[in-house]
Amino acid sequence: MTLYVNLAELLGTRIEQGFYRPGDRLPSVRALSVEHGVSLSTVQQAYRVLEDSGLATPKPKSGYFVPVSRELPALPAVGRPAQRPVEISQWDQVLELIRSVPRKDIVQLGRGMPDVTSPTLKPLLRGLARISRRQDMPGLYYDTIYGVHELREQLARLMLDSGCQLGANDLVITTGCHEALSTSIRATCEPGDIVAVDSPSFHGAMQTLKGLGMKALEIPTDPLTGISLDALELALELALEQWPIKAIQLTPNCNNPLGYIMPESRKRALLTLAQRFDVAIIEDDVYGELSYTYPRPRTIKSFDDDGRVLLCSSFSKTLAPGLRIGWVAPGRYLERVLHMKYISTGSTAPQPQIAIAEFLKSGNFEPHLRRMRTQYQRNRDLMIDWVSRYFPTGTRASRPQGGFMLWVELPEGFDTLRLNRALLGQGVQIAVGSIFSASGKYRNCLRMNYAAKPTPQIEEAVRKVGAAAIKLLAEERATD
Amino acid sequence: MTLYVNLAELLGTRIEQGFYRPGDRLPSVRALSVEHGVSLSTVQQAYRVLEDSGLATPKPKSGYFVPVSRELPALPAVGRPAQRPVEISQWDQVLELIRSVPRKDIVQLGRGMPDVTSPTLKPLLRGLARISRRQDMPGLYYDTIYGVHELREQLARLMLDSGCQLGANDLVITTGCHEALSTSIRATCEPGDIVAVDSPSFHGAMQTLKGLGMKALEIPTDPLTGISLDALELALELALEQWPIKAIQLTPNCNNPLGYIMPESRKRALLTLAQRFDVAIIEDDVYGELSYTYPRPRTIKSFDDDGRVLLCSSFSKTLAPGLRIGWVAPGRYLERVLHMKYISTGSTAPQPQIAIAEFLKSGNFEPHLRRMRTQYQRNRDLMIDWVSRYFPTGTRASRPQGGFMLWVELPEGFDTLRLNRALLGQGVQIAVGSIFSASGKYRNCLRMNYAAKPTPQIEEAVRKVGAAAIKLLAEERATD
Ligand SMILES: Cc1ncc(COP(=O)(O)O)c(C=O)c1O
Ligand SMILES: Cc1ncc(COP(=O)(O)O)c(C=O)c1O
Repeated sequence: MTLYVNLAELLGTRIEQGFYRPGDRLPSVRALSVEHGVSLSTVQQAYRVLEDSGLATPKPKSGYFVPVSRELPALPAVGRPAQRPVEISQWDQVLELIRSVPRKDIVQLGRGMPDVTSPTLKPLLRGLARISRRQDMPGLYYDTIYGVHELREQLARLMLDSGCQLGANDLVITTGCHEALSTSIRATCEPGDIVAVDSPSFHGAMQTLKGLGMKALEIPTDPLTGISLDALELALELALEQWPIKAIQLTPNCNNPLGYIMPESRKRALLTLAQRFDVAIIEDDVYGELSYTYPRPRTIKSFDDDGRVLLCSSFSKTLAPGLRIGWVAPGRYLERVLHMKYISTGSTAPQPQIAIAEFLKSGNFEPHLRRMRTQYQRNRDLMIDWVSRYFPTGTRASRPQGGFMLWVELPEGFDTLRLNRALLGQGVQIAVGSIFSASGKYRNCLRMNYAAKPTPQIEEAVRKVGAAAIKLLAEERATD
Repeated sequence: MTLYVNLAELLGTRIEQGFYRPGDRLPSVRALSVEHGVSLSTVQQAYRVLEDSGLATPKPKSGYFVPVSRELPALPAVGRPAQRPVEISQWDQVLELIRSVPRKDIVQLGRGMPDVTSPTLKPLLRGLARISRRQDMPGLYYDTIYGVHELREQLARLMLDSGCQLGANDLVITTGCHEALSTSIRATCEPGDIVAVDSPSFHGAMQTLKGLGMKALEIPTDPLTGISLDALELALELALEQWPIKAIQLTPNCNNPLGYIMPESRKRALLTLAQRFDVAIIEDDVYGELSYTYPRPRTIKSFDDDGRVLLCSSFSKTLAPGLRIGWVAPGRYLERVLHMKYISTGSTAPQPQIAIAEFLKSGNFEPHLRRMRTQYQRNRDLMIDWVSRYFPTGTRASRPQGGFMLWVELPEGFDTLRLNRALLGQGVQIAVGSIFSASGKYRNCLRMNYAAKPTPQIEEAVRKVGAAAIKLLAEERATD
């Protein structure tokens, strides 16, 4: 599996660096196979990855080309976060986001909602209703602290796809991925400790560090390949002398907000690093199932041989966040995680667990995922296209390889907080970039959700964001 | 309201102290009314309280008597916990309890399950099913961090019964009372801080202190009137010099495990104390609605005039624990509680919230409560009777004024851990007393659940507990 990702990376870099220009024909599958000593199907897989990231277009019977028709926006720059542990700020901005109620009259491009209107979810809804009508309804009882056994069995099976060989008793059901993350952080770190995070990073995990009196050390992160291992190694070396880094928290698959999938070789290297410095890895895989490439990418957990990886996930992005069902595979920290779970919610509601277990068992999950992946991938291309069209020239954008979020970078100095305020009256809401940094970096960035089926209303909303940005930029220049 | 409780207390103490003996006629309603300068109805209310606690029996047309027929077991002794803050132990015992799955072949007298088989719950189940079938099912979406607005409105109305005048925006929905408690503790205390607790005390709250690196100071607690204010005052005075006590955590209404309702005057006095020493009060009211007397008792929160009381509750005891819906009224700590809630679970599942809101709105809650209160009160008498009959002579038992748990005290030196092990093969499980103490006191005590409709199977289970206790005691004496 590593082979095709490596090859895709190599070709991708060459394209990005202008070695091949728009319109150029790319080397044939056969030529690459000979050049790199890999099978034809490996090259084909590599091309599919490039296709997914918009770096190659197939032309029937003539091979692959660098796309011309649509000029992709440049990639976001690698962030340059503070090189020391920081207290986490941005709670006010996060609160503003999570205070908002779903509203029909506002296009909420800012939130992490998947599309929950797909007909492939119907069996799940019927299941929920059916359980409520059952004699001696099991959803009314306290569950064991581990969660419903049938669900854990199904999960153990599901996780084989990501390379994990776990049993039902290696898993603990949680109230969403949030609870998986916070129990994991509390199981591995103490107040005052430092956690290394990818940057930009999911605000939920960072606000958890804040709430627990911990600090974040933001590690520069490449928008295509993920957290910088060099920077991380340097930080861990420094940590030996100065800072108590206890864990690395990151989202290597279909990263939020950047959308990349960390190549497998780098996942292994990260694990080796964690072993060398004896720190835990808290791996968020909440979007892993929504990778546009098949089979889905492996988790770092799948390489874990000494139980130091705590894998956190949930059905919030693949099924529906309102169910609040997640899980954690806590490795050697199981006992601590159980204690932390007990004190945070006691146990998790059984009804949605039973319904999801039945949904999985009946084989309804795979077709649902397939449909959503296709929809999200198509929407990604559309969203990037809209950004190219409606946003200020020079706008950069990520190349999500899974999930349903686009990261957009406006010129340095631009203030998306002002942008969001300007959009307030226009029925559109975005996620401002600064919440994805512990120290309020990325103010010139924003994140937009492209999960929903495209409608003229959504396109109009994106156009409004772009137009408001252009207007603000012009005003700034005028006052310069 | 204070008047009749005071009067009931006075008479109760006289009966308990033997001032009136079994079979004695108690003073007439008229005589007491004249003696204490209160209305006839106040005296009648006081007698109803005494009746509920099994201290008085009415005889038609001849007034109230001290019951003879059933010799009530003596009350448990006031505990003598450590007089200094302690690290909390007992996690292993708690884990053993919460690991257990509901099983048909075991009578689980140990868990905190209400009876969820009442037909008065039917509309709730139908509601849950109905919501799943709704177009664009609202249960699939992320909710606002505060929780479903309709439920908070209904709760604000419900809380009027306990004397609280709050608006929907003063409340935050939580994932059970557990989350209400842990967010409250984290909002008011830091690791290293000390929290004063009633003793015996709910293990969930104490394990939360443990998990957050805090210590508990167990305050002696009277089995009829609750936490000792003298002891608490002394502790707070000492604390000024030595220990950072930041909060008092207690369950004043239908206490778990002792079952008492703290008299109103003592609730007020406690609040005054908290104000004088400037500490927060974390009040657990999870059983408050299940008081056997009507109207239900007031909360300390209802007297709170400077926002220092954080009221925690849930529908786990009144409706069903598997729904995992609770709430917190955090007073001046709202902002901190929101942050702690965000990091613990993000938000709470909307579907059960909507179903409960509709259940309340349709007027289904009051009749349900009425039915459960009556059932639990009747079961209490039966359970006390079984304990009198089947347990070793000298066994003491609480007089629950609400809820569905009985606290049983065996002779000093008795070990309920051994008892539970002896019961293992007999299909019965109890809650050992030691989990209700931070330092493993109360090993000679146990808690039994009497929520379920009485059956020969349950009576047999209680008989087995008693028989096993008698056997163990005999063995102990033989080896002495
Ligand atoms: C990376 C990441 N992790 C975790 C979560 C939270 O998931 P849940 O809703 O299951 O708590 C999100 C959703 O916003 C996310 O983007
Ligand atoms: C006093 C007390 N508080 C809180 C709880 C927990 O309630 P919930 O199930 O809503 O988290 C219990 C139940 O065991 C309890 O007895």
